Formats: sequence, structure tokens, C-alpha cells
Amino acid sequence: MPPAFSRTEYDARLAKVRAEMANRGLDVLVIGDPNNHNWLTGYDAWSFYTPQIVLVQHDVDPIWMGRKMDGGAAKLTTYMTEDQVRPYPEDCVQKDGTHPMAVVGRYLAEMGLDDKVVGYESDTYFLSAKAVASLQAALPNAHWVDADLLVNWCRTVKSDAEVAVMRQAATLAEGAMRVAYETIRPGIRQCDLVAAVVAQQVGGNEGFSGDLTALSPLVLAGEAATTAHPMWTDERFGAGQTVALELGGARKRYNAGLARTVQLGGGSQTLFDTAKAVEEGLEAVLSVMKPGVIAHDVHRAWQDVLDRYGLSKDSRIGYGIGVGYGPDWGEHTVSLRPGDTTVLEQNMTIHVMLGMWMDDWGMEMSETTLVTASGVECLTNFPRGVHVIG
Amino acid sequence: MPPAFSRTEYDARLAKVRAEMANRGLDVLVIGDPNNHNWLTGYDAWSFYTPQIVLVQHDVDPIWMGRKMDGGAAKLTTYMTEDQVRPYPEDCVQKDGTHPMAVVGRYLAEMGLDDKVVGYESDTYFLSAKAVASLQAALPNAHWVDADLLVNWCRTVKSDAEVAVMRQAATLAEGAMRVAYETIRPGIRQCDLVAAVVAQQVGGNEGFSGDLTALSPLVLAGEAATTAHPMWTDERFGAGQTVALELGGARKRYNAGLARTVQLGGGSQTLFDTAKAVEEGLEAVLSVMKPGVIAHDVHRAWQDVLDRYGLSKDSRIGYGIGVGYGPDWGEHTVSLRPGDTTVLEQNMTIHVMLGMWMDDWGMEMSETTLVTASGVECLTNFPRGVHVIG
Repeated sequence: MPPAFSRTEYDARLAKVRAEMANRGLDVLVIGDPNNHNWLTGYDAWSFYTPQIVLVQHDVDPIWMGRKMDGGAAKLTTYMTEDQVRPYPEDCVQKDGTHPMAVVGRYLAEMGLDDKVVGYESDTYFLSAKAVASLQAALPNAHWVDADLLVNWCRTVKSDAEVAVMRQAATLAEGAMRVAYETIRPGIRQCDLVAAVVAQQVGGNEGFSGDLTALSPLVLAGEAATTAHPMWTDERFGAGQTVALELGGARKRYNAGLARTVQLGGGSQTLFDTAKAVEEGLEAVLSVMKPGVIAHDVHRAWQDVLDRYGLSKDSRIGYGIGVGYGPDWGEHTVSLRPGDTTVLEQNMTIHVMLGMWMDDWGMEMSETTLVTASGVECLTNFPRGVHVIG
Repeated sequence: MPPAFSRTEYDARLAKVRAEMANRGLDVLVIGDPNNHNWLTGYDAWSFYTPQIVLVQHDVDPIWMGRKMDGGAAKLTTYMTEDQVRPYPEDCVQKDGTHPMAVVGRYLAEMGLDDKVVGYESDTYFLSAKAVASLQAALPNAHWVDADLLVNWCRTVKSDAEVAVMRQAATLAEGAMRVAYETIRPGIRQCDLVAAVVAQQVGGNEGFSGDLTALSPLVLAGEAATTAHPMWTDERFGAGQTVALELGGARKRYNAGLARTVQLGGGSQTLFDTAKAVEEGLEAVLSVMKPGVIAHDVHRAWQDVLDRYGLSKDSRIGYGIGVGYGPDWGEHTVSLRPGDTTVLEQNMTIHVMLGMWMDDWGMEMSETTLVTASGVECLTNFPRGVHVIG
């Protein structure tokens, strides 16, 4: 299980992070987000449910600090050497009265970091309030600086090697949607549709397999179609139902999202009218996306179409997408919405996600896109219109 | 999508939490863990990747506070009424310079909670350091008390209705392992094994379906078998490999774990000797588990067997298991290990997990167990021995 990318690539990523650390005057960066661990070092294991960090300094190689039983994964899945892997003992895992990050904090103090400027991720899923407090208590003289999303922003523009993996993820997403289209019909249980989808996502094709996507597969059918993130049930799809499917594919932890809508016979004029507006809005969005354009203006192109049709949507219409273990595949950086002044750059990957959750039905249409030198390319290729069955 | 349990059951759970709040002098409890949201209210959606809380007070019904587009899920999957659902606007989601919990904090202040004793979960995955700080900044006069795991401890002893669901989860876990045994052989790709497993976990059987398990399916084969939590790859299983499988089943978000070991032809005497010791250790553990016994003594029974065989294992050998969205299915409460003085009670469900990760191979054997009136029952029923293929 060698890392997914070349040593040169990881070196370049590290240099990018260190440059931004230098910009902000940080001596040390405490990274808690497993997505960032993977991006920066290649580390790949389902171990982030116990606290683990990657420590970046300017003149010392990155260090992985996590649970003892996961130290092997650090050696196996990264370029790190023995001395870059610093595990904490098993007996502090999920134990009352102690915290692994208190132990790790002592390691940091022993390394002489107590007089340093230490950046940390304040808003990531797997570095809790107690974890941060435990680290800070161990280094009371350090100057702690909120460096949330520092690494995430370094991830927004993909290398060509990453784009190649994103293309594979998009192929897996197309496969998942194709299987969904082949399987869904009135009388089939929602769970059996999802079973077929996840098998396809993971099994992939002859050439390559997939991971489970960071965002759970979402099936919006029946009354659940009015909500954005429902879980599947044992219920059977009904004739006449409008079903929105938010699926995707993941390859080497890189995610591509793909949402489409299926109509199981019939279908109201309102649905088809809305779908027409949404597709026109999507085309408007794609027509303006290119390097140099700001996210706000991309959203504006969408809003102009909605306004013309008298429709409204108050949630963002897209976000950066890439490495994700879950529960989110978004990068928590650029959002396509009013006021976001992020400038699009070549090789950003953005999930343009158009979900319309109405009073008693819902529809979705999305594309995972790549900003190119002069415009945008849809990595996902799948017919966009509402798919009518029967 | 009605809640999984009766209104009476949710009322009893709420009473249990309020009693413990009273014990600790808490006026308010801020719950960030989606597992606890589900257990307490039935709330079920893949929405916890943006901050959401459930607020419990003594004389006011529980209130769900989360992202606007997920408010519908709160109404659809719980017994909550309109006035118990308090969404925050979409424009503060994953946006620089703002935090949803700053908005929620203002809501709490408007509710007059700024002079209260407020418990909060300090070490849960989805209530970050920044989220906690944002809430605290909005209620500077409140007395903030770390109430981490308060709800988790209320979850340890299951109701009979929960046990019935755990039995279904265990049936799904058995199905997953059966499919794995049927699929695995030299030459099959790891991903194709996992594809078959996840399809079985989700599709379930005629009677009921499943969720994806909170812990990812783990396949420990080849060099990865020396680590505890590796992800599957495209590699093909090789003749002579020892493969440990940590799988499970999940039903209505309740998880049951099941680990077994497969030998793809051959197999060293060391493996079979170790497996014999581990199986004997498992039997010793099961023979002492019953109400009134402390976790420490359960571990002691295991250690006595290991000592006799000259083996060692420094990680815990079990933990409470139940509701879990991921990345962990453990309840973060009781652990079977030295020094844990938790007293076993009837209707606790514990995943007894015996993983031996050696220098160049690994094996696992586990059971999801139910503490009964007089002893223990394995909810999972599957042959324990190393399964030799070919």
C-alpha cells in the first residue's frame, strides 16, 4: 500500500503548507483533519475515530501522532520513517480521566515547542474541544493561533495527478448512477437500490475500484424528498414518485459527486418546468466558470436564471470537493454563493450542486467540475434531464 | 419515516438524561453528538457534517438546532413539533468569518439561558473547539460545565426494544460474514469482497434492510494485516494469506460488530496456536460476564489465558456498542481493560473484540454480546475457528 502519489508531489504539498505557515508566522502546525493527513502524507486508515494529529514544522520532517495500534498504518501508507511516527499508548484510548492529546501534548513539550507559535485546526471534526484544550494545557507558554482551513485552502487547486484520480472518481460516480437507473422502479425497496449502488461504487470496474463516498448515498423519495439529507429505508418506491439521488464515487479517498432525478411514471408539469430552469441555470453557471471569475459571480449567473423563472433557493450551489473520509466530501473552502470572493483558478474541482427541496417534493442536478485554463469541464458525464421510467 | 421507537421509549430516555442533569446540577445540556441526537429524539439524517445540537432543559421540550435545509428531517424523523425545530440560516454554513454556533448561541441567549448552568459535550466529533467557543462567547455569564459522555452513559443499558434492533443488526453482521466467506478466495480483489459485503449489509434480507456500519468494513490482508484499521485496495488475495475481517451490521443506526479470520490455504502452526488461545480467551471472557462483574475482572479472565500461552495484547478487548453514524460504533463508555471499574448490568451490549496484530500477520475474533440476567449471550452466531479455504 504505497502512498497514492509520488514523493515529489507530497514534497510540493508540504512546501505549500510551510509557505503559508511562514506567511502567518507559524512555527508549528497541529493538523487534526484526517483528510489533511491523507493529502499531506498519504496516511490512509480508518483510525481517525481516536485522536490523531500530524505535526508540521519548518526544519523537521512531519510527524504522525496517533494510537499505538495505528502506528503501523503510518509506516505502511506514507513515506514517513520510524522516527516520524510517534504513537501514544493504548491505555489512554477512550478512557475517563485522561485524554490522548494530553499525552501528545507532553510529547510536544518534550520536543521543546512550548515557546513556539503553534497553529491549530479549530473547526475540524476529529480534533475536539477537549483535545485542543489538552494540547494547550500541555504547552501553556506557546502562542496558539487559529489556523483552521490553512491546509484545506492549500488543497483547492489540484495537481494533474490529483485530477487524474478525480477523473477516476467521476467514472465511479457515473457507474453508481447508471446502476441506480438500471435498478430503480416502483416496487423495489430503497435499500436494494442503495445495495446495488454501494457495490458498484466499491467494486468499480476492471481497471480500478472505489471507496465508500465520504457523503453517504442519499435517496430522496416520497415525503423524505422534501429534506436534503435523508437516509434510505426499507420502503418500496411508488409509482408516480419523484426520486432525487445524490450519489458519487471515491477513488483513493478523492470524491466526485453526482446528483440526478428520476420520475417513476407520470410527473407533474411543475417538476419538468423546474428541471428545465435548473438545467438552464446549470448551463449558465458552467458558461461563466473559468480562472479569474469570483464565486459570487458564478452564483449570480444562476440567480439570474432563477429570477427569470420566479424560483428561489437560499443555499449555496457548489463547493470545493476532493479528499474526504466522511462525513463530508466538501473541502470547506470555496462556496458558490453571494458574497464569496474566492477567485477561481485552473485545476480547482467544484461540485456544482443544484438541489431544489420544495414543499412536498424535491429534485437535484449536479456535476463535479474541473476549472480548466479557459473555462470548465464536467468530470461527470451523464444525461442531465429528469429520467422518466415507465 | 416515523422514529424507530415508541414515544414512551423516547420519553423514558429523556427522563434518564434529565435525572442525570439534575444529579449534576445542570439546567441545560448542549448535545453535539449525532448518535445522542438519534438516541434521544430519533433524529436521522446525514446532516451532522454541519454543526447541529439538541438542547435539553428540564421544563421545556428538547429543541433541535441545525441547518435550515435539515429542519425538515427533524420534523419528519422525530416526535418534535414545529416549535422544537430551530434552524439557522443557510448563509452561515461553512463560511469564513462566521460560525453556525455563533448564531445558535444568540438563539440560546434570546431564550434567557445566559444565567444558567450549561453542560456541553467537550469531546465529541461534531461539536468542534470553535463551535464550543462560539456558544460560550454568546453566553458569557452562563456557567459552562463539561458534561461529556453524560448521554452516552445513559445509552449503555439497552431497552428490550433496543435489544430487538441489536439482534437484527447482529443478523445483518452474520449475513455480511457469510457473504465474505462465500466470496473470498485467492485471485479475488479485496474491493470485490467488500462490494459483496456492503451490498449484503445494506440490502439485508426479505424482512429488513441495513445501514452502512459506523466503522468501515476492515480487511486485514497481506502486509496490512499487521495494522488494525487498513482500508481495502484493488489487490488480489494471495494463496496462503491470513485475512482478518472486521465486519458488522447496522439496523436503524444500531451496530453489531463481528470479526473472524480466514486462511487462504496452508496456514502456520503459530496462527492456529494463537487462534486456539484467543478462542479459549474468548470463552473465558464469556464465562465471567454477568451483571455485577466489573470490566476489569472480565479483562483479567482474558489475561489469565494469554499469560498461560505466553501471549500479550496491550489494547482493550471490548467496549459498549450501539447507535453509531460513524466513524466509530463504540459508545465511548465501558471498556474491557485493566482498571475499568464499570459494573456490568443486564442489557448492556458489548463488542468483545480480540485483535492480535503481530509483526507480520494478524488475526481477529469478536462477538457482539448482550449481558443477560445471569450471564451473557452472543448476539452474533457464527463459527469461531479460523476458516481455512482450499
